[in-house]
Amino acid sequence: MKRRALFGGAAAVGAAAVGGAALGGVMGGADAAATGPLTVDFHGPHQAGVSMDPQAHQSLLALDLRPGIDAEAVRRLLLLLTDDAERMTRGRAPLADQEPELAAVPARLTVTFGFGPGLVATVRGRRAVPTWLGPLPAYRTIDRLEERWSGGDLLLQVAADDPTTVAHAVRLLVRDSRAFTTVRWRQDGFRHGAGTHRPGTAMRNLFGQVDGSANEAPGSRAFDEIVWRTGADAWLDGGTTMVVRRIAMNLDTWDEVGRAGREFSIGRRLADGAPTTGGSEADDVDLEAVDARGFTVVGPAAHVRRARPDDAGQRIFRRGYNYDDATGSGLVFSAFQADLERQYLPIQARLAEQDALNAWTTPIGSAVFAIPCGVRPGEHVGEALFT
Amino acid sequence: MKRRALFGGAAAVGAAAVGGAALGGVMGGADAAATGPLTVDFHGPHQAGVSMDPQAHQSLLALDLRPGIDAEAVRRLLLLLTDDAERMTRGRAPLADQEPELAAVPARLTVTFGFGPGLVATVRGRRAVPTWLGPLPAYRTIDRLEERWSGGDLLLQVAADDPTTVAHAVRLLVRDSRAFTTVRWRQDGFRHGAGTHRPGTAMRNLFGQVDGSANEAPGSRAFDEIVWRTGADAWLDGGTTMVVRRIAMNLDTWDEVGRAGREFSIGRRLADGAPTTGGSEADDVDLEAVDARGFTVVGPAAHVRRARPDDAGQRIFRRGYNYDDATGSGLVFSAFQADLERQYLPIQARLAEQDALNAWTTPIGSAVFAIPCGVRPGEHVGEALFT
Repeated sequence: MKRRALFGGAAAVGAAAVGGAALGGVMGGADAAATGPLTVDFHGPHQAGVSMDPQAHQSLLALDLRPGIDAEAVRRLLLLLTDDAERMTRGRAPLADQEPELAAVPARLTVTFGFGPGLVATVRGRRAVPTWLGPLPAYRTIDRLEERWSGGDLLLQVAADDPTTVAHAVRLLVRDSRAFTTVRWRQDGFRHGAGTHRPGTAMRNLFGQVDGSANEAPGSRAFDEIVWRTGADAWLDGGTTMVVRRIAMNLDTWDEVGRAGREFSIGRRLADGAPTTGGSEADDVDLEAVDARGFTVVGPAAHVRRARPDDAGQRIFRRGYNYDDATGSGLVFSAFQADLERQYLPIQARLAEQDALNAWTTPIGSAVFAIPCGVRPGEHVGEALFT
Repeated sequence: MKRRALFGGAAAVGAAAVGGAALGGVMGGADAAATGPLTVDFHGPHQAGVSMDPQAHQSLLALDLRPGIDAEAVRRLLLLLTDDAERMTRGRAPLADQEPELAAVPARLTVTFGFGPGLVATVRGRRAVPTWLGPLPAYRTIDRLEERWSGGDLLLQVAADDPTTVAHAVRLLVRDSRAFTTVRWRQDGFRHGAGTHRPGTAMRNLFGQVDGSANEAPGSRAFDEIVWRTGADAWLDGGTTMVVRRIAMNLDTWDEVGRAGREFSIGRRLADGAPTTGGSEADDVDLEAVDARGFTVVGPAAHVRRARPDDAGQRIFRRGYNYDDATGSGLVFSAFQADLERQYLPIQARLAEQDALNAWTTPIGSAVFAIPCGVRPGEHVGEALFT
């Protein structure tokens, strides 16, 4: 089941309810519902912030443990941050919060925790670090990685539909972490503004492409199979793995390409994200289809062909956010998958080897994190790591 | 009439319509209206983007004319950008737009044009530049101005409820200006996420304060008197003046102040923006009220006392946006007023002389622009400047 299927019911509701209140030449959204009070449960078998329709705004923070921080200090840090996250995601102010009014608008706030190799080594020793938890293989054909966007001991994914909520939560979490960690990097991003699109609508990246069409619908059985980890390391049972890649997009050279060339490079129509071989966004691409001259409609280097799984196991869940700031324009790409080596690496290797989009995109940051399982009331995040 | 009064009718609608669709632990906003199609008319007696409930996202761009650009070239630039703005604000792609899908979601997009002294001098000669159109007086007690956030020949205020729409519009406008101008600075900011708050709800800044409580309601008679210019220079009739100040906010030292101290420094309650002398946000502050010991409730340095007009003419309309990025945290402060010298300067001078908030805030950028009148179909922005 694809994303569209799950949200299909909502689509009928969305468009009809737009009212117009004339105000100084403005068509106002006076009838729009105020979604600020909406909350996402912090507790559950899995961490929040993954299996959901992504919020409009996200800040990813990678923190590094300060020298001398040991396992017991990491536990205190996680206790503190768990308490902060529990409170803020319910719209309540953390204990030391001086701006409780900014915490009062959760707007679907989630705080998701990820562990880098340094944190796992500190808590359980170097030998406990899984082989996949570390830098990805070097993709020399495409990577131009910068230290300032790569690596990290502790990831905080902070996301909400209100950017003010995100800014306040980031501030609180960084402040409360200060005695334990330093900020290694921060990557802010946006999708379509909350309320401007129907929930479940595909995001467009800054190339104008529909992004994430192949995602399975959060909450579906297929999603659960792709994302949640079972069996392997006990401390990650019910968790997942996360790859963060900062992909710089060259809008200037992309401008030089016409629409036909753009669609050919992707293998999807720009208008609606449907495969160039026909159908709708949710339909599979027909990689065998040929045109009148006998050439495949989807070229050998088209992104959809290269990204297409070799086998059913090579599936990932993408959660991308656009960035457009003083550092440039691009995509903060995130992917979640139960088994990074089996699900993610083959796709990434194929894309690094050949992908028409590589002409206009450059990975400039890369990091891998283990996302521990969900939290029960009274526990802290990552409790199983300490057992 | 204060802001709240005008939007009072909408408040009753807003909160009731929030629906909850359970989805993997998420309270979804599936019933929320999709406001992406909403448009703000580009044409009218006044430029759009001032008399309206501010959009969630804004990018301010200051461009400098390249050497050799003369009046005729400025006119061609304004023709080009007017055409871009007309199209994009209606949800249509500009002529040279390669990503028309990104233009298809106006989300209340407005593009507002402002002229700095350099542009006016280029078109009409140095002697035509009004005395007020240039750097503000130096406020040595508070200013730590940086060139990279100050001045500029041409201002573009690009705002919408969808940050993707803003990013795309900025990209198009910068690209089409490239032969004529260089980008001097860009300041992005956000208010509460569209759809997360009821239209007309006050914004909170990153200090947690309600920001802009004293604003008159856009579209009200009082608003019109404060903002729109009549009589003076013919080329600015129906226009206004705009001050942009980048105010860095020191969240670390602000953290050290308790709530009582914070409310005393402002003269408003943090909870709801009401004066500390009682009433609600829309009520006037009672500067004479005394406490049991005979001291004025609102102290001599309280922001509301210092910002309070000496006479009824000293009124401005504030349109602030939060920023929180690699350069720090703060407020992109904008103020619109018909007569900058009479309405704005006395307030700014008083605040520079004494304002309790100055302990935690630092102006690091400053610019002044003339906002020409609105545009009729077939005209370009600022046509009267050329007559």
